Amino acid sequence: MSVTYPLGFTAAGVAAGLKASGGLDLALVVNDGASIAAAATFTTNRFAAAPVSWSRDVMTAAKASGRAPRAVVLNSGGANACTGERGAADAAQTAAAAAGALDGVAPDEVLVCSTGLIGVPLPPPLLLAGVATAQKALSSAGGLDAARAIMTTDTHPKTARADVGGYRLGGMAKGAGMLAPGLATMLVVVTTDATLTSEAAQAALEEACAVTFNRIDSDGCMSTNDTVILLASGASGVVPDTCGFTAALTAVCQDLALQLIRDAEGASHDIAIRVTGATTEEAGLAVARAVSRSNLVKAAVFGRDPNWGRVLAAAGTVPAEVAPFDPAMVDVSINGVMVARDGGAHEDRRLVDLSARGVEIVLGLHAGEAEVTLYTNDLTYDYVKENAEYSS
Amino acid sequence: MSVTYPLGFTAAGVAAGLKASGGLDLALVVNDGASIAAAATFTTNRFAAAPVSWSRDVMTAAKASGRAPRAVVLNSGGANACTGERGAADAAQTAAAAAGALDGVAPDEVLVCSTGLIGVPLPPPLLLAGVATAQKALSSAGGLDAARAIMTTDTHPKTARADVGGYRLGGMAKGAGMLAPGLATMLVVVTTDATLTSEAAQAALEEACAVTFNRIDSDGCMSTNDTVILLASGASGVVPDTCGFTAALTAVCQDLALQLIRDAEGASHDIAIRVTGATTEEAGLAVARAVSRSNLVKAAVFGRDPNWGRVLAAAGTVPAEVAPFDPAMVDVSINGVMVARDGGAHEDRRLVDLSARGVEIVLGLHAGEAEVTLYTNDLTYDYVKENAEYSS
Repeated sequence: MSVTYPLGFTAAGVAAGLKASGGLDLALVVNDGASIAAAATFTTNRFAAAPVSWSRDVMTAAKASGRAPRAVVLNSGGANACTGERGAADAAQTAAAAAGALDGVAPDEVLVCSTGLIGVPLPPPLLLAGVATAQKALSSAGGLDAARAIMTTDTHPKTARADVGGYRLGGMAKGAGMLAPGLATMLVVVTTDATLTSEAAQAALEEACAVTFNRIDSDGCMSTNDTVILLASGASGVVPDTCGFTAALTAVCQDLALQLIRDAEGASHDIAIRVTGATTEEAGLAVARAVSRSNLVKAAVFGRDPNWGRVLAAAGTVPAEVAPFDPAMVDVSINGVMVARDGGAHEDRRLVDLSARGVEIVLGLHAGEAEVTLYTNDLTYDYVKENAEYSS
Repeated sequence: MSVTYPLGFTAAGVAAGLKASGGLDLALVVNDGASIAAAATFTTNRFAAAPVSWSRDVMTAAKASGRAPRAVVLNSGGANACTGERGAADAAQTAAAAAGALDGVAPDEVLVCSTGLIGVPLPPPLLLAGVATAQKALSSAGGLDAARAIMTTDTHPKTARADVGGYRLGGMAKGAGMLAPGLATMLVVVTTDATLTSEAAQAALEEACAVTFNRIDSDGCMSTNDTVILLASGASGVVPDTCGFTAALTAVCQDLALQLIRDAEGASHDIAIRVTGATTEEAGLAVARAVSRSNLVKAAVFGRDPNWGRVLAAAGTVPAEVAPFDPAMVDVSINGVMVARDGGAHEDRRLVDLSARGVEIVLGLHAGEAEVTLYTNDLTYDYVKENAEYSS
């Protein structure tokens, strides 16, 4: 399961005391393979957390040295973001502690991820003791505990896997809010026992993220801590076909991405926004994003109101130079009913059934051939409640 | 009061039957002055409503002919947006009806504004009968009725006025949600008895809007119908100083803008986001807008949580090329308490009192000398309720 499904990996999830609840809050994932490669993508938020800065430096160093990182420490219970020099030192210490506990691993071969409240320093003694405990608990069955240890407001651990012609992929993710375009309070680790170079791993990861994690947008907010990591152990001995591997990785990422959006804070509907007939994928994405960020559209879906007017109003905020289309030619279908056509009312909106959790809004732009789908949620009382009452 | 406070104007607000409630829903404002000028700004939404297209054409024709529009018909109870050719015909008919009822006014001297549900055609018989009734009710005391007739989810009519060295300004506004950057479901008419050219009026209106209506952003959504109109009658005989007039107009617009934000749907806090030390006003505005659009920040304020981490995370999404600043130098003060300094925790957040309706969030960027303030609201259960249950 999870990150220990592929051969060559051990993992653990332990309770380090970072979460007031006493639940699992520290995860360790170790690549024991003989042919190690790694890739990562990070938040573009300018207030990137200390662990993001640390891990970025690790990836840069790895590129120069050719020695890919072998382990990842992840904690919930604190984001270690906006914590200044102390935060940077804490992230470095965490990596050093993991390196010290693992055979033949240097501190700069350890990636670090954190999630939780911004601005509160982590307690180093608990963190370092937790790393030691996690190292002792490492096992090839530890993937699920690791997935549990990174949960914050998630209602359940998220894992995925794939078997592809002799090699495997496994993954875990956390994130239940602040899911946004450039990734967002989302930590993801995907492992594989395929034999890859780090360059191939990076290329595949970027391709996969572009059409999965970057196409879920729960509330338009982008976190300081988002990280997606891919580790390859080579333990299967299989050197995969590039396209085949990218497709398998994309499938695992999409599985995790959809689990994230389905568990978004307080949501009662999952909304797929499909834009067809765009001049380019970018143009379609701009329209889809404008709709996905409209609180009015999202509140209407919560209220089971097939409000195509709000959908068009949101689409109409995208400048013509970004997404060329003729407003008088646009149609909108909601759950299969074409409620608007040629920019005006068409089929009876009362025919639209919004009682089920899944909602599909299709905007036909009739301007080109490109098509794109973005996933978001509705705006509910519970979203407001969770984000008003839970400090994150 | 309202648009009839300056000399040379009559107005009326009547019940035309467009609102199911039977309340006032049609307003007429007529400029009876001898020296008539007019200016207007409109939504940039590409699904601009039929009345917006009509009124834009009127302004273009006025520029060519030198004959400024003399009257405005405004209705609530229907936005006449996304209504195709029928909607365009209805807007034109409305203008023609007003022209027919008024002495010496041509249809292309009548501006039209509508607000209400998108996508539902207006009933022309009711609309045209309403225009006739309104014409009969015109009076120099009709300003407040006119302000009442344009209300939708507004809880009260919004009016403002100013006396400036021999001339007056008066205004009315509606809008209680969907207030956004490029203006948003906001209808505003400001009148003055100063003597102006239409060019001077347009210049003053654009300057005033830039720092008032364009600096309120309730929910980031931009409507299909937003319109701000300035009519000058010349009835005072005073030719104002350009700067003085712009300042007086700005004051009236700001008064109305703040009334709009304070009456935003379901809000429990009014939030002023002040960005100081920006390299340019545009850079500061980009940061302020990112913060004002963060549902996480807005939900935190609703929950009385002085969550500076979310404020920084929102600011951090603005690209460095748009707003240059060093994240390690940014401070955040909430209601006078500097909760973050140099990008990290500073004063005790428990010192922040968020019980009052007014909230000020100040971001010090320490990158330059520019300063800007943007107004928004918190995100509440009632916002979701109104926008889930009320189709608009």
